Order: sequence, then structure tokens, then C-alpha cells
Amino acid sequence: MTPSPSFNSSIPTVTWIGEADGHIRLIDQTRLPGAIEFRDCRNVAEVWEAIKVLRVRGAPAIGVAAALGIIVGLDKNGGPTPIADAVSELSRYLQTSRPTAVNLFWALERMRQKAASISADTPWQDARHLLWQESMIILEEDRHCCHRIGEVGAPLIQNGMGVLTHCNAGGLCASEYGTALGVLFRAQEEGKQFHVYVDETRPLLQGARLTAWELKQRQIATTLICDNMAAAVMRQRRIQLVIVGADRIAANGDTANKIGTYGLAVLARAHGIPMYVAAPASTFDRKLPDGSGIPIEVRDAKEITRVNDVDLAPEGVEAYNPAFDVTPAEFITGIITERGLIQPVDRETIERVLGTVTASQ
Amino acid sequence: MTPSPSFNSSIPTVTWIGEADGHIRLIDQTRLPGAIEFRDCRNVAEVWEAIKVLRVRGAPAIGVAAALGIIVGLDKNGGPTPIADAVSELSRYLQTSRPTAVNLFWALERMRQKAASISADTPWQDARHLLWQESMIILEEDRHCCHRIGEVGAPLIQNGMGVLTHCNAGGLCASEYGTALGVLFRAQEEGKQFHVYVDETRPLLQGARLTAWELKQRQIATTLICDNMAAAVMRQRRIQLVIVGADRIAANGDTANKIGTYGLAVLARAHGIPMYVAAPASTFDRKLPDGSGIPIEVRDAKEITRVNDVDLAPEGVEAYNPAFDVTPAEFITGIITERGLIQPVDRETIERVLGTVTASQ
Repeated sequence: MTPSPSFNSSIPTVTWIGEADGHIRLIDQTRLPGAIEFRDCRNVAEVWEAIKVLRVRGAPAIGVAAALGIIVGLDKNGGPTPIADAVSELSRYLQTSRPTAVNLFWALERMRQKAASISADTPWQDARHLLWQESMIILEEDRHCCHRIGEVGAPLIQNGMGVLTHCNAGGLCASEYGTALGVLFRAQEEGKQFHVYVDETRPLLQGARLTAWELKQRQIATTLICDNMAAAVMRQRRIQLVIVGADRIAANGDTANKIGTYGLAVLARAHGIPMYVAAPASTFDRKLPDGSGIPIEVRDAKEITRVNDVDLAPEGVEAYNPAFDVTPAEFITGIITERGLIQPVDRETIERVLGTVTASQ
Repeated sequence: MTPSPSFNSSIPTVTWIGEADGHIRLIDQTRLPGAIEFRDCRNVAEVWEAIKVLRVRGAPAIGVAAALGIIVGLDKNGGPTPIADAVSELSRYLQTSRPTAVNLFWALERMRQKAASISADTPWQDARHLLWQESMIILEEDRHCCHRIGEVGAPLIQNGMGVLTHCNAGGLCASEYGTALGVLFRAQEEGKQFHVYVDETRPLLQGARLTAWELKQRQIATTLICDNMAAAVMRQRRIQLVIVGADRIAANGDTANKIGTYGLAVLARAHGIPMYVAAPASTFDRKLPDGSGIPIEVRDAKEITRVNDVDLAPEGVEAYNPAFDVTPAEFITGIITERGLIQPVDRETIERVLGTVTASQ
């Protein structure tokens, strides 16, 4: 296929093609912005690989892809196992793709619970259809969440503001529209003018490759900077607000997000700049009392030492490549969710805005 | 020539080959660490270009290269102008190569003063020889300064420390040995064991390409990180000291250095980690009362958006690429100079350690 080189509000980040015997279609984010290529996943190993190597990335999008991954897994490998067992097995496999974003585990748990709720004497195809419906609901809910997050957060954006963001929390991190960028998109739709500074976000450059591309699509004024320039730009008083997404938020508001977020939070505080996180309720892991329990993925050192297959560093040099860091709640001004703004960020306010913990959380 | 792929204490960063009718030989730092290539500069335009595109970089090395550049300029274009006029003209030209590192202006001013001190009836070749001697003195003084800085700073390094550095302030930033890395080299020579975390230093990756290479040559335990990981590594208590070089230091101690240094200084303070600057006295610009007067070079956006001739960001995205930032003196624990340690960093202590301002400063 020859995809259009630009999309409007709806970037087809993760979609389902067909219904019975359908498959997942992803935009391959490792190829952006140079090429817009779609990748079809027709079995669960392809979904696992796509998550692992970041063809699909961003906590909400990973959750959606995993839920749909259960369906391609059932269609490819289904029967004669009881469907609930098949879902559990597929889920255990998909869980091993990446450890930090809790949306992956949340979506798989929802699929397991749905499977467990289906009567054992339901014909396989009927049960599969119910599970497919559940995955479609997860996809639809994610779309809805992102637009609601945009509505909740947009009042924070004021005319003339400079806004700094890190990594990609846009339409490419979710089924569409995004979380942190969803707030900016909504503010733009409300007629506000603002300027976005985008951290390139080493090592995989999601800011340069994905966020700058999304902002350009929407003709939002954008300046790309290297991550180490954020402090200087803050000192120059060009930034009035920092907004990022999240991969996992503990019960007290401690937030794991792309590596570099914690440093930005410290810098934002030092410069008196508010720091917001935008994320759906599914990004909260309320079993964890605080951020110390969040597993941090450490990725291949070659992501740092090689770019485009060229070595940047001397051979054999050790590199440390944590993909995420944890920002303590005290550094976060507010968390923008589809259920409302959590501000101040503490356990009590989280409980008030999100409600009490349910079994699926 | 087929250069050796490794050097010991003496990396031939900037050298003079021959004497009368000699030329400059540089290690081409844009090609490291993939290739060790030397570049001979036989006219002043080649020296200007080498400074501009960072074949030679680092404040002390730029100063040395500029002083030697005067000599190749005289040899190529000399006469019949009075030699003092020729030196002034060459100096004005070389000054336009890069704006921030004051060592460039300092070295050129020394060459101008030397030229002005030479009696007008001195034969051209004799005058040229006196100027060549002055350039050799600048080179030798730089070597001496770096080793002295190492001696002054080494007591700050303790066994078992984690040390963070940014950009390259090693043998490649000076005629040899370096400033910030000179301190580490000296500590190693004294038998101390420590671990160095190296910021890769976007956009031009001097940390990954040059510092990691120098540390590897000396078998110092090294871990490369992306710039945005420094905060997380500090929070993990892996860093007990930050040490960097400098490009220009104002009379009150405000310090311009590679972009990202200011952010590191804010992060170091937030984590209770001491932050040291290592630089020769020639890096001080004591005419400037504070850092607000330091000109900050803004380089081509393509240094951010392209790596190895591959576009990383969408075409047409604006990028902001300041090469330096200014760290206020209040964030700097001490400045290590060849004349002693300046601590605390304030005007009075600077005057006490460096002496009163002379005409050449």
C-alpha cells in the first residue's frame, strides 16, 4: 500500500483489520519520520516483537496492541485448549515483551478476566467473538480517554505559553490523539497559540522522530532541542509549563516515564515551572505504594553507541541504558486523567479523582 | 602516515611540524573514534576551518591552534606588510572562527602583544622566529598548565568515587593531558580507583566519541550514558563528584561550558553532589563582570537533526542549537586552575588565587 504521508487527528497507530480472522495493523514507529510504513501482525510472536523493538510504543498503545495480540494469538493457535487457558498462556507470553508500562499488564488482565467470565460451554467462536469485542472496547476506551484527557488538560495551556515535552505522548503513544500531546491538540482546537519545545529524547529519539512529526502535521509552532538544552531554555524563560506522559504511576503518584523525565522535573522545580503528567487511569498501578517498586527496563547499550548502524562510541565501551526513570510525586504539579485533574499529587487526591481500587487495578 | 591507534599520556592534539616553513598537525577530532586521522594546516584558512568545524576543539586547544595559526599565516602570506600589522590582520580573521572560548582571543592577543614588542627594524625572519617562539611557549605553557591542574585537582578524587563528566575536557581539548580529565588522569597515576560516567553530549557527541575513547586508552572504568540519564544516575547515588571543563569564566566565576553543563550543575546541587570546573587561567575573561556578557555560539540546526548524513527529524522542523550555556558561580563548588583551587567561587577568591588582572587578561 502507498500510505498518505500525513494524517489528521487520527493517526492509525494500532488498528484491527477485518473481524473474524482479522489482524493487527500498526504504523511502524521505528521507521518514522523517514518512512510511513505499516506492519501487519498476524500472530502473537509478531505482536511481541513489535512491542519489544518499539514498532508500537507508548504505554496506552502497548496496552491496546497486547489486547489485540490475544485475538491474533487465539485465531492462529486457538483450540483445543479451553479459551481461558489459551488467553492466560498468550498473556503470559506477551507480558515478557516489556516490563515498565503497566498498561500492558492491565490490558492483558482485562482480557484474562473477560475470558474467565465466559461460560466454559460457550462455543469457541462465540467466546472468541466476545474477547474480540472486549479488545475493541479497550481500543475505543483508549480513544475516548485520550480525548477526555485533552479536555481536562487544555485549560492549563494559555495563549503565548512555551511548553516543553519529552519523548512522545501523542497520537503515536495511544490509539489516537495521545495524552500529553492530546492536551496540546485540544488547546489548539480551542484556538490557543503556544510554542512547543521538544526534547529529542535520546537514545531512540522519539521526540525528534515522532513528536516533532506529529506537531508538524498539526502546524503547531515547534522547536526541537537536545535533551541537555532543556535547562538553558528554562533559564531563558522560554518555558512556562512541562507536560509529559507516563508508563506507570504508583498509588502515591510517583511516576515512571521515559528516561530524562526525572531530570526535567528537578529542573522545572528549580526554575519555578509547573510539571504535569498526562495519563489514563489504566497507567496507575495502585498495588504499588510508591515508585520504588516499578521495574525499570534496561535496554541494549547499542541503542546508545550506534545510530543508523554507525558506531558513535569506541568499540567495547560500556553504556548504561535505562529506558525509564521514576519522578517522585512531590515534583509533579498535577496528573491529568480522563477522570479529572489530580492536583496536588498525593494518595488522597488520586483516590478522590480515580475512585477506590477495583480488582482490575 | 599510519598513526598508531592508541596514545598514552600524550595525544598529539595540536603540534607543530618543522620549524621555519613548518606547519600545524592536528588530530581530526571529527573523525574520532572511528578513524585516527591527522590533518596538516599549511595556511590560515585551513586553521580557521579546522576550528570552525571542530577538527580541533576545546578551549585550550583552540587557543594553541590559533597561536600556531598566526605562524602559518605569516609563512604563507607574510610581507611586505609590517609583521605587527600582518599578525593583527591574521588575528582578526582567526577571531571570527568561534565566539565563546576566550582562549582563542587570549592566545591571539598574546601574539599581537608579542608582535607589537618587536622592534620595527627587526628583519622579517627574525621577527617571525620570535613569534614562532612565542607560539611554542603558549603550547608548552598549556601542557604545563594541564599537568598542574591535574596535581591541584587530584586530591578531590577519592577511592571508590563515581565521577560524572560532560563533553570532552581531556587530552583532546588541550595540547595534551586535559583539564577535567587531567585531574582524573593524575588521580589514576596516584593509584586511585574510581568510575567515570560520561555524558554522550549531544549533538556532537564529544563525550561518546572523545572522552570515552580517552578513558578507554587509559583503562579507566567508564560507563557511557545519554545526557538525559545523568539525573537518574545521580539519584541512584552512583555519582559523588561532577567535573567539567570551561570555555570562558567571568570575573565572578560564572562559567560558560558545553551546553548541558548548567543543567548538570542544577541537578548536582539538588542531589548534594559537588560540581567542579577545571580550567587554566587563560580561560578567565576578567573584563566581564559576570556570565551575562559571554557570547554563546548558536550552531547549525542540522547538527541536531542529522547524524551521519541521515535525517533524524522531519524535514523542515526548527531546531535550536546553542553550543554552550552559562552556569552561575553559585552552582560551582570550586574551579581547579594551574595556580590553585578557587573555592568558594567568587570574585575575591578568584583574585586571590589568580592575582590581579594584567593587561593581557
